[in-house]
Amino acid sequence: MHRSLSLFRRAATVLLIACALPLLLLADEGMWTFDNPPLKQLKERYGFTPTQAWLDHLRLSSVRFNDGGSGSFVSPNGLVLTNHHVARGQLQKVSTAARNYAADGFLAASEADEIKCPDLEINQLVSMEDVTARVQGAVKPTTSAGEALEARRAEMARIEKESLDKTGLRSDVVTLYQGGEYWLYRYKKYTDIRIVFAPEEQAAFFGGDPDNFTYPRYDLDVAVFRVYENDKPVRPRDYLKWNTAGADEGDLVFVSGHPGTTNRLDTMAQLEYARDVQRPIVLGFLNGRLGVLRAHAKTGPEAARQAQDLIFGLENALKSYQGEYDGLLDRAVIDKKAAEERDLRNRVDARPELRAEYADAWSVIAAAMQQAASTYRERFYSQVGRSQAGLPGIAMTIVQYAAEVAKPDAERLPGFNDAQLESLRFSLLSPAPVYPALDETLVASWLAEGLKALGPDSAYIRTVLGGRPAAEVAREAIGGTKIGDPAVRRALVEGGVAAVNASTDPLVVLARKLDPLVREQQKWLETNVNGPLQAAGEKIGRARFAVYGKTASPDATFTLRLSYGTVKGYPMNGTIAPPKTTLFGLFDRSLGFGGKPPFNLPDRFVKRRDRLVLSTPVNFVTTNDVVGGSSGSPVVNRAGELVGLIFDGNIESLVGTYVYSEETNRSVAVHTAYIIEALRKLYDADRLANELEGRGR
Amino acid sequence: MHRSLSLFRRAATVLLIACALPLLLLADEGMWTFDNPPLKQLKERYGFTPTQAWLDHLRLSSVRFNDGGSGSFVSPNGLVLTNHHVARGQLQKVSTAARNYAADGFLAASEADEIKCPDLEINQLVSMEDVTARVQGAVKPTTSAGEALEARRAEMARIEKESLDKTGLRSDVVTLYQGGEYWLYRYKKYTDIRIVFAPEEQAAFFGGDPDNFTYPRYDLDVAVFRVYENDKPVRPRDYLKWNTAGADEGDLVFVSGHPGTTNRLDTMAQLEYARDVQRPIVLGFLNGRLGVLRAHAKTGPEAARQAQDLIFGLENALKSYQGEYDGLLDRAVIDKKAAEERDLRNRVDARPELRAEYADAWSVIAAAMQQAASTYRERFYSQVGRSQAGLPGIAMTIVQYAAEVAKPDAERLPGFNDAQLESLRFSLLSPAPVYPALDETLVASWLAEGLKALGPDSAYIRTVLGGRPAAEVAREAIGGTKIGDPAVRRALVEGGVAAVNASTDPLVVLARKLDPLVREQQKWLETNVNGPLQAAGEKIGRARFAVYGKTASPDATFTLRLSYGTVKGYPMNGTIAPPKTTLFGLFDRSLGFGGKPPFNLPDRFVKRRDRLVLSTPVNFVTTNDVVGGSSGSPVVNRAGELVGLIFDGNIESLVGTYVYSEETNRSVAVHTAYIIEALRKLYDADRLANELEGRGR
Repeated sequence: MHRSLSLFRRAATVLLIACALPLLLLADEGMWTFDNPPLKQLKERYGFTPTQAWLDHLRLSSVRFNDGGSGSFVSPNGLVLTNHHVARGQLQKVSTAARNYAADGFLAASEADEIKCPDLEINQLVSMEDVTARVQGAVKPTTSAGEALEARRAEMARIEKESLDKTGLRSDVVTLYQGGEYWLYRYKKYTDIRIVFAPEEQAAFFGGDPDNFTYPRYDLDVAVFRVYENDKPVRPRDYLKWNTAGADEGDLVFVSGHPGTTNRLDTMAQLEYARDVQRPIVLGFLNGRLGVLRAHAKTGPEAARQAQDLIFGLENALKSYQGEYDGLLDRAVIDKKAAEERDLRNRVDARPELRAEYADAWSVIAAAMQQAASTYRERFYSQVGRSQAGLPGIAMTIVQYAAEVAKPDAERLPGFNDAQLESLRFSLLSPAPVYPALDETLVASWLAEGLKALGPDSAYIRTVLGGRPAAEVAREAIGGTKIGDPAVRRALVEGGVAAVNASTDPLVVLARKLDPLVREQQKWLETNVNGPLQAAGEKIGRARFAVYGKTASPDATFTLRLSYGTVKGYPMNGTIAPPKTTLFGLFDRSLGFGGKPPFNLPDRFVKRRDRLVLSTPVNFVTTNDVVGGSSGSPVVNRAGELVGLIFDGNIESLVGTYVYSEETNRSVAVHTAYIIEALRKLYDADRLANELEGRGR
Repeated sequence: MHRSLSLFRRAATVLLIACALPLLLLADEGMWTFDNPPLKQLKERYGFTPTQAWLDHLRLSSVRFNDGGSGSFVSPNGLVLTNHHVARGQLQKVSTAARNYAADGFLAASEADEIKCPDLEINQLVSMEDVTARVQGAVKPTTSAGEALEARRAEMARIEKESLDKTGLRSDVVTLYQGGEYWLYRYKKYTDIRIVFAPEEQAAFFGGDPDNFTYPRYDLDVAVFRVYENDKPVRPRDYLKWNTAGADEGDLVFVSGHPGTTNRLDTMAQLEYARDVQRPIVLGFLNGRLGVLRAHAKTGPEAARQAQDLIFGLENALKSYQGEYDGLLDRAVIDKKAAEERDLRNRVDARPELRAEYADAWSVIAAAMQQAASTYRERFYSQVGRSQAGLPGIAMTIVQYAAEVAKPDAERLPGFNDAQLESLRFSLLSPAPVYPALDETLVASWLAEGLKALGPDSAYIRTVLGGRPAAEVAREAIGGTKIGDPAVRRALVEGGVAAVNASTDPLVVLARKLDPLVREQQKWLETNVNGPLQAAGEKIGRARFAVYGKTASPDATFTLRLSYGTVKGYPMNGTIAPPKTTLFGLFDRSLGFGGKPPFNLPDRFVKRRDRLVLSTPVNFVTTNDVVGGSSGSPVVNRAGELVGLIFDGNIESLVGTYVYSEETNRSVAVHTAYIIEALRKLYDADRLANELEGRGR
């Protein structure tokens, strides 16, 4: 199952800045920006040429879920369709010990019953503007790599601020092609999002962790929200027309969504760093953490409920991360990447003007990765606390927020620029519940693991533990903190540096102690790693343009992309996987395991089995090039109608971070027919089904 | 799908004589002889101790299909259950251009309508006698390896002849543990076997070649015969009681059948020979031959019908052979085998008395394999004609038969001893149809391939082609032969050497020309390869007994074996395969491919879908250690009742030729409940279902 930008992944891949354009355009490969759709490939392979109106309509119907994931407007009254697993964080946040919406699902009987999400922001990409010249022009040729990094950032912050002031729209400068291009993306931002429908976890995530990232699948991984403004449902000009007949084998289909991260154009030095340094450490840590969470969940039903979302996310991250790691260990993958790099370098070396300008970039990156490797373990453990959900992350963000907003915009740490503050505060001051007992368990294990990995003499361990036991530090910090209360957070945020410095809240005190060290690491990283990487990456990017032209899509950046492909089976484990599955198969797989979890079905499925048309398509696979973050993306046909809903990739697609193979890489989608069949026959939700199918409300 | 001793495989593996006992007894591993059942393992792992009566009953209920495969008596009136794909050869032989039983199935309305098989012999193992001392005692310590081979063979032929004369039973001396033991197996032989029921190919082999050797599966791979003697159904004392509830997850189950060949105890030199010399040549040839057969099948519907069984067999052999080859290419497999060999050799070297006696065996085998490699290509192409079905094989056998029966029994080529002649004549004089057009195509391509592989100057090519085009030689030999007529064959067989030498039948003439060369190769092989291999193999076998004791089962030899295991899913392609499948899944898989071949279903399945209980188990998997040849074996529970029917192994089991892994190696079986459900609801065969379920006839 694809899962958006998992927090773990975001933390772990921050260093892996991809560096260039693909060597060759392969088949249905590519996650294309809407300013540069693959018109040539579509015409040549499929005889299809989308109009600008077709493209604009699809773009404006698409939305980004800022807590990770994608979605689309699917009704004139603001319904947004996404996955259950994208909705899951919000379902968890509106649940209580008494009502577990994440597990048991929810259907609003009327608009009045729709449940408002505490901190969900969704974005609609309303315009794109090329600002490459301005960003690149901000860098003087003589500056060092570290200074150049800062100069670019400052210019990007200025562009964002100007745009925000002028348009009132969320404005993000996006780095594409490793700095080959910079674009200003303006988003319409929605923050009043209400939950309309979610099925039971067991329908959405049937097959659980074993079936996750695999196919054939039988999942109703669906959730429906409604977007409000001024307490009224929005009436989007653009929404996707629902097509219940849905996708069928051989159909050309499009996916419009927000793939998170790819590293297809990393240099060999970066791949080796990921393989030999970073991934083993991260995988080791995540495996240990999953054990801690499972043990915590066993302490009682409410502990289990609270830990549920994290366990889900962690299992998902682990399986995906392991799949990527296996790709790095695969000789064939590495050989292919090495051949690509060799070809580019040979072509650069063959042309003196390119050679003079670009040939040193690869050794610069190799040196930067060596630097990165020398400190990775310490940096990883120092950052775990910050990059995880829960109270420690909140505390660290508050401490940094106070210090950063006091500076001129252009000098702040990434993430704290003026144009970003509103969204940041929305998330920071969320009224969503916190789980101190769970956080304490996690902090204790994080500190204990850090101690074990780094030893008592590391600067980080001395700072956070100061010789005391990890459990004691965790108990004191989490047990004594009041920042679970949004009002306390607000007071600190609004009180600024003075309030933060005066705070005796033990978790804030701990974050304050850690802050200088994190800043020092960040500074070191920018000077020794990110600066050189960015400069050399840009060089390789330009070298690629010079050698191959601009023929491929940029690496994924959790911004809107268009992919195309075909509904198609694939070779699998000695046989062929089918283009689609049906309700027959759902019952087969459940009964094949004797109905035991995670192959059990919600009662309503068992009781109402005879009402169902069992030949209804459930899930299907396409060759579309999609990675984590695309979860919840609409699948549309040539007519731009909704025919499916992306929710996963097959196990063979996990290596897609590095290479795409049309033979075996598949996106997995929920079929529109299944959504309607389930809503009408299993959930008694004719009203919602009618609205989706455009039969009036 | 497991397929017995395919002719191709038999030809290809003739050199791969396995050489020793397993290093460690792993889990549910082992294909045990009935004289040495795994009582200790059953008691320790499963708390189960079969009585001698239980074992005898299972053995006597089991039968061997001599054209390749296994089966069991399942009614007091002589019904025998096996697979459709085991019955397939006979179904083909009783079919005509007008009636294609292999494709369309058959159900006898009454006993009178049962169709007699032209040349099917089945065997029931009625006794086993240890003759090790006698066979080993026949070899003088001073003889050469080649002479020792002959001396052993002569003694074995004497034992068989004496037993036949004394008991009238088919008597085979079986080599176990690479000559560590020799056993006289006596069989009750049946040759009047009639076809009672076979489903359509599309029900039996749903999913076709893609799904073959994979799981989850949904196959009704079933056929029912009735055994007659004196034109009356036999009334076997031992037959398996039918249990329609069948097997369920976690059940301890047993398989009693005839696994064909394993090479688990080959030395590294033998594995490398297979990997580097033999398998690439065989795979290349088989792939080419499959192309030839498919092209032939396209020339018309009757050509397609005639070629159908060979295509099926060849696809099956190729997939299985490729899976085994992949195992040899798998570093992990090779490392495991190397570690096993190292351990045994170290232990031998550590004990002076073992070292003196056995330590040279590995280098003897390595030298023999080098010899074998030097001539493999020529030998392979010279033997293709003989080892294939059809007229060329018949002609070659007749020529050799005449010469051999004129000699004293002990001096004959293997396969022509007195005790074997009755079965050989039964097969040689079969009234089954021959397909000259098909044979001509195959001979032409075989000769052309041989020319390409060996060049015009090889002794073999000069002998068979003598400078003429392959197609011309094939046309003359097959076009002009009369041996398609069983009466012509009988005259030659009964006329002996004189008749054969006088024959001007062009195919007999060709076989006569080839015969000296084949004999020369055979002689060379025995002196330089098989003799040393047998002697050294025996040494390693004895060394194993000395080091590890007699704790494991011998390699498979197409003789009756008992295996045990559990009904259990397994990790597969990122998820878990279920212990069983259901009828829901059959329809899911068919619809998932839009009902396109090979995922189409017979009409009756579609029309009568609503009559079926869709939760009926269809296929299931067990940890039983089973390989090709076991097809059609009964699966029985602790009570000795029939709960399933082996028909295949999963793709992960193909490497089982070399290593067994309890984690992923699975046998695939048809569930008894599916057989009954299909007979009653789809085939209107209540009469047969009643007989199977013991409800009277």
